Amino acid sequence: MAARILDGKALAETVRAEVRVSVDAFKAKYGRAPGLEVILVGDDPASQVYTRNKEKASNEVGMRGRLHVLPAATPEDEVLALVQRLNADEATDGILVQLPLPKGLREQRILDAVSPAKDVDGFHPINAGLLASGRPGLVPCTPRGCMRLLALAGATLKGARAVVVGRSNIVGKPVAQLLLAEHATVTIAHSRTEDLAAVCREADILVAAVGKADLIRGDFVKPGAIVIDVGMNRIDAGNGKTKLVGDVTFAEAAEVASAITPVPGGVGPMTIAYLLENTVTAATARMEKR
Amino acid sequence: MAARILDGKALAETVRAEVRVSVDAFKAKYGRAPGLEVILVGDDPASQVYTRNKEKASNEVGMRGRLHVLPAATPEDEVLALVQRLNADEATDGILVQLPLPKGLREQRILDAVSPAKDVDGFHPINAGLLASGRPGLVPCTPRGCMRLLALAGATLKGARAVVVGRSNIVGKPVAQLLLAEHATVTIAHSRTEDLAAVCREADILVAAVGKADLIRGDFVKPGAIVIDVGMNRIDAGNGKTKLVGDVTFAEAAEVASAITPVPGGVGPMTIAYLLENTVTAATARMEKR
Repeated sequence: MAARILDGKALAETVRAEVRVSVDAFKAKYGRAPGLEVILVGDDPASQVYTRNKEKASNEVGMRGRLHVLPAATPEDEVLALVQRLNADEATDGILVQLPLPKGLREQRILDAVSPAKDVDGFHPINAGLLASGRPGLVPCTPRGCMRLLALAGATLKGARAVVVGRSNIVGKPVAQLLLAEHATVTIAHSRTEDLAAVCREADILVAAVGKADLIRGDFVKPGAIVIDVGMNRIDAGNGKTKLVGDVTFAEAAEVASAITPVPGGVGPMTIAYLLENTVTAATARMEKR
Repeated sequence: MAARILDGKALAETVRAEVRVSVDAFKAKYGRAPGLEVILVGDDPASQVYTRNKEKASNEVGMRGRLHVLPAATPEDEVLALVQRLNADEATDGILVQLPLPKGLREQRILDAVSPAKDVDGFHPINAGLLASGRPGLVPCTPRGCMRLLALAGATLKGARAVVVGRSNIVGKPVAQLLLAEHATVTIAHSRTEDLAAVCREADILVAAVGKADLIRGDFVKPGAIVIDVGMNRIDAGNGKTKLVGDVTFAEAAEVASAITPVPGGVGPMTIAYLLENTVTAATARMEKR
């Protein structure tokens, strides 16, 4: 294996340590901790784990993290009322609505109700528009994590060819915007792309964010490229067990790439770290605005 | 010359005729004409011509077009007050602030004050975010004009390689979003792109939106590609005169492309046509929402 393995777990610890410093500075200046409110509707087991982790992680860096658990049958208006109450609450800096929401709740309507200034997921159309316009705003966590991993890899972005595979609003499109802002020449590929292998081989920087195991094989990777694998796919590991893999066939790509993120332990841990970072950023921006 | 010349002037007439039909339907349904309000601050001669053309064009399709001319020395708060008054006015469907604004006025602040529902230029961050998220909203006029020219050319967008040269918020980025929504594999190139010629040669669809005469030469164009030239550059024509040219060296590119827009008479006339289209779209959306 030639490629350097980009250790997202260790890097996420670094980001958390940075956030802790910012949280301490915030507390010293404003006399309170930044507050992150996480809303979970229903009892999806994976979502329960994720939201508890987010609550715990925010408290670990000195924030006030709180989890609101609502029954799956909660009417939409009650979810909206909670969001509105948190929007109006001075001590709430970040609001995160855990997805997916139970059927019957209109996801878009609820996400759009979150105040853009507290939208630490960066999903609100205003934040998407500010990002698209190169203006300051709250940027989705996973794309921020990808950019930090590229910095760890020492990537030169200016003038580099970057290929993003996947065009989701949560990862593909915002990471393309961030790469473009750093002056990369950016190509967005997706399920309809013809000859994906050839398009990927143009990439000095290859970001895979589709959610399909073994989509990106070793021969898709230009020798020396940096590969960021956002995929999280649970596949059959044989003998009745499952394992987590990315979109990239790791063993093959690691032979060719200069640096690559593993799955797990690559992009995954960065997402929560940047949720914390976004919360202290949102808190500081709100307080400074007043 | 091998390429088909895409006649934007004639196509803009078609769009205007379509708008006229929509305006008539709107009038029949709501008992009033859609209203477009154009704000000009200062006495820039080019802006005077542009705004008068917009006023005239909107009246020609049966709308109520009005031009507000404010002195160059108008304080920012007064410009904002006019925008707010038009935002609140029930009979105003579209508000356009002509750029550039005189020095001393904060462009961003004034543009952000325009109600997103009346933002017929599609410049508001909410509209940029809706476009970036693949959601309905008001889309900038020139990119819409480009897409219509591609339709005229009979371009197959799904799976095609599209290269957009230029990453402005007004043209490059939104046209990239529209191409992506049509399932093209989209590359955004710009001033920092290395070997621009090679990147452009990948394009089945090449959109040039930089503002630099002769940036795109004939050998940048893949044989059979469709070329959309958004550039509008006034250059020395010899003997003391000037002439308008695009970003593409037309005579060279027309030898190689399958279809190409001329300058003038290509993208230019489409922009005003889609301003009118956006106004009737905005009017209809607002009325239907009530």
